[in-house]
Amino acid sequence: MKIAIVGGVAGGASAAARARRLSENAEIILFERGNVPSFANCGLPYYIGGEITERNKLLVAPKELLEKRFRLDVRTLQSVEKINREKKTIQVKNLADGTVYEESYDKLILSPGASPFKPPIPGVDHPGVFTLRDLKDADMIHQMVQEPDGNAVVIGAGFIGLEMAENLVRRGWNTVVIELADQILPPWDKEMVEPVSQHLKEKGVQLILSDSAVAIEKTENGLSIKLKSGEVIDARFVIMSVGVRPENSLAVDSGLDVGARGGIQVNTNMQTKDPDIYAVGDAVEVVDFVTGHPTQIPLAGPANRQGRIAANHIFGKDSHFRGIQGTAIVSVFDMTAAMTGQSEKALVQKQLPYEKIYTHPANHAGYFPGAEGMSIKLMFAPDTGKVLGAEIIGRSGVDKRIDVIAVAIQAGMTVEDLEEMELAYAPQYGSAKDPVNMAGFVAAGVLRGDHAIVHSNELHNEDFVEHFLLDVRTPSEFEAGHIKGSVNIPVDELRDRLDEIPCDQKIVAYCKVGLRGYIAERILIQSGFDVVNLSGGFTTYQHIHGT
Amino acid sequence: MKIAIVGGVAGGASAAARARRLSENAEIILFERGNVPSFANCGLPYYIGGEITERNKLLVAPKELLEKRFRLDVRTLQSVEKINREKKTIQVKNLADGTVYEESYDKLILSPGASPFKPPIPGVDHPGVFTLRDLKDADMIHQMVQEPDGNAVVIGAGFIGLEMAENLVRRGWNTVVIELADQILPPWDKEMVEPVSQHLKEKGVQLILSDSAVAIEKTENGLSIKLKSGEVIDARFVIMSVGVRPENSLAVDSGLDVGARGGIQVNTNMQTKDPDIYAVGDAVEVVDFVTGHPTQIPLAGPANRQGRIAANHIFGKDSHFRGIQGTAIVSVFDMTAAMTGQSEKALVQKQLPYEKIYTHPANHAGYFPGAEGMSIKLMFAPDTGKVLGAEIIGRSGVDKRIDVIAVAIQAGMTVEDLEEMELAYAPQYGSAKDPVNMAGFVAAGVLRGDHAIVHSNELHNEDFVEHFLLDVRTPSEFEAGHIKGSVNIPVDELRDRLDEIPCDQKIVAYCKVGLRGYIAERILIQSGFDVVNLSGGFTTYQHIHGT
Repeated sequence: MKIAIVGGVAGGASAAARARRLSENAEIILFERGNVPSFANCGLPYYIGGEITERNKLLVAPKELLEKRFRLDVRTLQSVEKINREKKTIQVKNLADGTVYEESYDKLILSPGASPFKPPIPGVDHPGVFTLRDLKDADMIHQMVQEPDGNAVVIGAGFIGLEMAENLVRRGWNTVVIELADQILPPWDKEMVEPVSQHLKEKGVQLILSDSAVAIEKTENGLSIKLKSGEVIDARFVIMSVGVRPENSLAVDSGLDVGARGGIQVNTNMQTKDPDIYAVGDAVEVVDFVTGHPTQIPLAGPANRQGRIAANHIFGKDSHFRGIQGTAIVSVFDMTAAMTGQSEKALVQKQLPYEKIYTHPANHAGYFPGAEGMSIKLMFAPDTGKVLGAEIIGRSGVDKRIDVIAVAIQAGMTVEDLEEMELAYAPQYGSAKDPVNMAGFVAAGVLRGDHAIVHSNELHNEDFVEHFLLDVRTPSEFEAGHIKGSVNIPVDELRDRLDEIPCDQKIVAYCKVGLRGYIAERILIQSGFDVVNLSGGFTTYQHIHGT
Repeated sequence: MKIAIVGGVAGGASAAARARRLSENAEIILFERGNVPSFANCGLPYYIGGEITERNKLLVAPKELLEKRFRLDVRTLQSVEKINREKKTIQVKNLADGTVYEESYDKLILSPGASPFKPPIPGVDHPGVFTLRDLKDADMIHQMVQEPDGNAVVIGAGFIGLEMAENLVRRGWNTVVIELADQILPPWDKEMVEPVSQHLKEKGVQLILSDSAVAIEKTENGLSIKLKSGEVIDARFVIMSVGVRPENSLAVDSGLDVGARGGIQVNTNMQTKDPDIYAVGDAVEVVDFVTGHPTQIPLAGPANRQGRIAANHIFGKDSHFRGIQGTAIVSVFDMTAAMTGQSEKALVQKQLPYEKIYTHPANHAGYFPGAEGMSIKLMFAPDTGKVLGAEIIGRSGVDKRIDVIAVAIQAGMTVEDLEEMELAYAPQYGSAKDPVNMAGFVAAGVLRGDHAIVHSNELHNEDFVEHFLLDVRTPSEFEAGHIKGSVNIPVDELRDRLDEIPCDQKIVAYCKVGLRGYIAERILIQSGFDVVNLSGGFTTYQHIHGT
């Protein structure tokens, strides 16, 4: 068995190591276009920023290790240019000397990854405009950032853009982030990332939203970036991080199928329509585990598992990729933003039915020092209560809760299952009613019809303008800021002041996070009022409407 | 509807609040024997140790709040002494003035909790011998610990014992912990808590295992504790934390059923055999979710949910308790120990079939600064691969992984599901192959027969004495310590040195944590050798056999 693997990072390296564990006799050749295989691409921004000080640490599985431990034939600086499916050969170009040669294969695994997209604007190919894909890119930027000098401009506020912004600030650069969308992390729901935007600004990042670069010009001491709005920004250099595109040319050229967004199409064994060619990692189209729709999400974890699955299948082991949930996390200075499953935006776009709730719990028991807040948004099926997705932002403990919900989605659990979860509780780690349980309580209450809610994004719709807005927080909370037109009756006084509430009007109750509002709702409903609670309270309201 | 609730902490308070949310009209009386309801009992050791500085913080839901917000009739310092089931009345003693009165109920909820066990040894009732159950106890101990003066002795190395030990050290006391078992945290598997014992000693705790107090005598300046071994320990005071017993006297006296360990028996609605009497919290017998056996585990999370379920059922809402997994966590100085589901010990005792694996991953990507190790033990069904239990010890990230596995157990997932989990990865939070994925890979490999393992506790059995012990680590690792009789051939040299390995002998390969050992096994098996890998490698071996 002769296996040729195109691409030596994540998926390719995993496939190679797995193949070797399954067969000592196979000939396994790993072609890597760059100068090192299997490097830690998720660590590159932190190497640039100086948090990772040793470049060596980025070499997860150095060439020598792959050769010795897994007896792989690792060929760096070699680019696979063509596939001859009939002859089962590939044409390889040695980038070091320009020579071209042919190599045969029994099985071919494509793991070419995805390449950073460079928008076709004038000046985008200037040497001061970087993208960040591999160690070579990282080395160049690393050298550039050593001495802060004017502006560093990041175009695109996705994961890499935000991580780069943080690391440029760490290096002392005056950092400007330009994003086409009206929010950072465009695939996320806007209200959830609002506090992260705020945090970026507090840390000194200049955030320009709803704008884009239309031209980049060379100046005496760097670059000048012209924006669509007319604004012009000087920059010493630019990091272009506006997304990636699957590297599909090899697949397309050899007649393999690709999907609407360019991802190489494979079955659950990671096999293309040519049974001798597999494809894995960021270049393939995958099935969304929640919706069943085709999708394209570059993630390291799934890439690794896909590599394993391809190798398993080559050696006759039945092994299937179950699809992708889109579990992702990003650290932004002192904050963490994480999601799994569908965003509300994605559900709307796919016209799938959903309900949502917001909560703002603390990461652990409030009585133990160091408790920090987080915000959770949970999407679920309005009929079955099946969990469809979640977004969480906060500080400590965000990663734990998103993982717990990710497993719930994998298991097909409902919001009622979240209520019942028995999670580890001691005051340093959580609460007897963990944030995930609490989100479950709220969502299940809504699902069962015990808890009628309204959302902040609907509150100023025509349907609600006639509502009586009841703020049930304390007078001091009310004074510090409230929804315009609301009347303050603290929940603890509510039973004694029912006569102040109109009985011929629908009522929207709200508090800070939704808990007291819910208690108020229960009191009022049982006293004959027609009332709904504002999900996520004034906190979510502020994330949507500002302060 | 008139609801009487006996016990105002966790389960009782939750039941009361839930009942009020479901009914504005119900009369709800909360009887609490202590002077405050709903306090944070899990915080008491940290208040004593000074980590929680404000005593007020421990009052989770003060009497006034319960009265105002939930219109509860909160009666502190009142002890329910008798139940007349026929008349549906209770006899209440006012502990403040000694008066006794009767109160009727439509529904009665018992949430009496569990009381610390005091072994019947001479001197156990000396005023210098404390137990820690409520704020009154905490106040007394808090006063006692202010000025370190000689020895503080903790009897019992369970959760409360260890938390108290840490907090006494924090206060500057010379702290001695005495435990009857030959390990701390007796229900856990011994090899897993070994590093925690080590850590306790490093932090200055004197740990006396396999010994017990047989008498406590008063001395001039404190107490003298005589141990079974003959040793005598001086102490300024003693914390007795040798476990708790369900407070079942009220239930027993009124003819309700209790289980073998004294827990009040209830159905899944938390109803006793008297349909008008419910019981919740630490006093009830519950079903073990994994084994289906009756059990008794005092945990705050389930107590809260049980309170909710009882209230739901009273108001006609179908609501069931699904049983308890025993998810628990404890912080011990800088370490964390957590478990969920069955320990190996419990599986052996119940004679249930299982397989186990050990791994020792890092909490996050090794290339990112601050990675810390953890040790995972995973128990699963040898036929189906269903996850039965896990124990994890380490530092950061232990709580996350135990919660992920707890949800897997709740969902009835297998070790193959752990392989497939899509958890949030960025280098600060985890690895592309998360520790839970890795444990899944190893366990699923064992399950599928791809990965033959042996365990350190079997290694010196008769079956294995004739084996060839192959250490595949580097020479420097080997020199720093190895299993007696083993031969060192580093995995990366293995293919070239196969002639040094006997082909007529069974081989046990091992490395530091089990990963290189597995690779060696794959190489050797395919070269015709008969080989097994030592699960968890030399690290687990040391936890079991010492260094």
